[in-house]
Amino acid sequence: MTTKTLKNVRPMAGNLTDLHIADGNFVADVPAGAEIIDCGGRILIPGLIEAHTHLDKSLLGLPWYRNEVGPRLIDKINNEREVKVSLGLDPRVQSERHAILAMSHGCTHIRSHVDVDTHHGLAGIEGVMATREKLSGMIDIEIVAFPQSGMMSRPGTAELMDEALSLGAELVGGIDPCGMERDPKGHLDTIFALAEKHGKPIDIHLHERDALGWFSMEEIIDRTVALGMQGKVSISHAFCLGAVDRAYVTGLQEKLAENRIHILTTAPASAPVPAVKELKAHCILTGAGCDGIRDTWGPYGNSDMLEKAMQIGMRNNLRRDDEVELALDICTYGGAAILEIEGYGLQNGCRADCVLIEGETLAEGVVIHAPRKLVLKGGVVTARDGVCVMEAP
Amino acid sequence: MTTKTLKNVRPMAGNLTDLHIADGNFVADVPAGAEIIDCGGRILIPGLIEAHTHLDKSLLGLPWYRNEVGPRLIDKINNEREVKVSLGLDPRVQSERHAILAMSHGCTHIRSHVDVDTHHGLAGIEGVMATREKLSGMIDIEIVAFPQSGMMSRPGTAELMDEALSLGAELVGGIDPCGMERDPKGHLDTIFALAEKHGKPIDIHLHERDALGWFSMEEIIDRTVALGMQGKVSISHAFCLGAVDRAYVTGLQEKLAENRIHILTTAPASAPVPAVKELKAHCILTGAGCDGIRDTWGPYGNSDMLEKAMQIGMRNNLRRDDEVELALDICTYGGAAILEIEGYGLQNGCRADCVLIEGETLAEGVVIHAPRKLVLKGGVVTARDGVCVMEAP
Repeated sequence: MTTKTLKNVRPMAGNLTDLHIADGNFVADVPAGAEIIDCGGRILIPGLIEAHTHLDKSLLGLPWYRNEVGPRLIDKINNEREVKVSLGLDPRVQSERHAILAMSHGCTHIRSHVDVDTHHGLAGIEGVMATREKLSGMIDIEIVAFPQSGMMSRPGTAELMDEALSLGAELVGGIDPCGMERDPKGHLDTIFALAEKHGKPIDIHLHERDALGWFSMEEIIDRTVALGMQGKVSISHAFCLGAVDRAYVTGLQEKLAENRIHILTTAPASAPVPAVKELKAHCILTGAGCDGIRDTWGPYGNSDMLEKAMQIGMRNNLRRDDEVELALDICTYGGAAILEIEGYGLQNGCRADCVLIEGETLAEGVVIHAPRKLVLKGGVVTARDGVCVMEAP
Repeated sequence: MTTKTLKNVRPMAGNLTDLHIADGNFVADVPAGAEIIDCGGRILIPGLIEAHTHLDKSLLGLPWYRNEVGPRLIDKINNEREVKVSLGLDPRVQSERHAILAMSHGCTHIRSHVDVDTHHGLAGIEGVMATREKLSGMIDIEIVAFPQSGMMSRPGTAELMDEALSLGAELVGGIDPCGMERDPKGHLDTIFALAEKHGKPIDIHLHERDALGWFSMEEIIDRTVALGMQGKVSISHAFCLGAVDRAYVTGLQEKLAENRIHILTTAPASAPVPAVKELKAHCILTGAGCDGIRDTWGPYGNSDMLEKAMQIGMRNNLRRDDEVELALDICTYGGAAILEIEGYGLQNGCRADCVLIEGETLAEGVVIHAPRKLVLKGGVVTARDGVCVMEAP
């Protein structure tokens, strides 16, 4: 039932009011036959946007995986490719478990990178597409074809990426053109060519730090300009924007803003991160994600984007209420703008994708991130009291 | 009732066994008339040690405090001194609320810094002492007399510190001898003189970064040696050990180890932090704390030392199970060693201060930090299912 009245609700922690939903959208007038839901004065926010995760690879639902993996990036990548086989990890099942966990926390949209490699082919893409289909209407899932194991050193991967994009992946992914691929020109030329061929946007992982990351970022900016892809390129992680040399970073941020290149932060506590207040000052669209959770890379994460807002606040030393509200904005409106979600928000006419949260203020909502009282997707209840209405497989 | 049998329990995630408690201590033999508690195969760990917090100043239980405080350290210190008055903050009530929250999460021992200044005199010390008395037997509280607003620039503070130590504070506190006090010699001479006079240990806040912090740390080490206070000095925060110049830091860590100076980390995501693996390699005792929670300094924190273990893991990029176990060790055995808690642990003869946690492994216990099933202090139940048996005022 997608026709409802939310009574005693405080949109964005504002004044107490009633909101009406008809046919899954917020509407001004009381709809006929609406189901009445008393919200008990709780805060309503629009659906949380998980804008950077990896649905195909969590270990949710499996026995605890004892992590004894080596310290280098390549250790983790190689280990994962092998463990997927030894554990018999099924991307369809894992992505459904993961998406249902995200829904339980109030997530209504996910952008997921999904591995494409010569070892597993398109199994990940097909698995996540099956989950997307199964959960259709309950959560929106956008897929980035992601060459996790590298394209340049693994012949055949670019062709698989091409197939993935034909099959239904919405974005072209990429990864550290220097640090991982050792061939920035080759890697970036390939992913931009795929984007041009398929008319699809790009979202590239960039963990490279300091001057190495700046170099890669400049190469990304140059290609964005050359192909007229302004507004269609996102850079995930962007650790190089957390570098000590702020003058250089400021110059880069100006170029990113000028070419409407977006930033997706996962706000890790142990790496340099883009300064979200600076991104905002530069009017760079900023979204966020939990990144991989509970996988062979590391044990942390629970797919809760309200907790992630707190982590963004802690990582960026956001203490004032207006600053904590910025962290929440990144996990809602920021991600929604990057994902180009139509009708996002709590205004009349918007799609009724929304979350009832606990707390007196938005900042308190973020800080306590208590189990969500209610989650709606297009007016349909998808979670109650922190539990998704669908059971994980 | 302090005589119990914990059935089906896994001490430190080891094999399933039964543990016996008589007169509040773990014992080898089944005690007569023991209450039987089925632990359902859960993991048992010793009580969590909150080794750095501020019990006198949280805003727990009050309406949400809208933080609009300026960015500098002195803005926060001055604002807090004034807000304590305008909100009528009662250190006795606030410390009880805070301690009960900590107990609900499995904390059995707290070291709290408590403000001593010419504005509020010893009100904080007296308030926390009243809570310590009231909660006696349920949680142990150790008090550090803490000159938050400075001693050198506020005549009369050192005399109040002296009084606080006579009244019952167990440790001498201090704060940034350069950055805050602008008189490292004066500040350190004063606190070491107080420590010598009262025969009490020192725990000093050191937020100073890089070379400034190294300088202050060297001055602390020199005085520790001069007074033969090896093993009796802790440095809290120690951000300067997170500096980029690891060669210099290594030299300092060798000196700390040589003089048995302990480190207490709060593992903030937005500041440089001591590298806990390096501290362990140097055999420097390391404990942890949540620092101030929900106060005028910032909105974060919930006094959960199992979640803090996770944050230590995330901040230090600890991904392997053995690394996550180190984070837990810091929040249990590490803090206990620094607080010189007698009979700490799960062995026979130890005090039955312990926590039943969820999870298959210790690492999972840390990562999920689910509500604690049961908390015992000297064999007495202090919390069940995440709720303290005592109600907060």
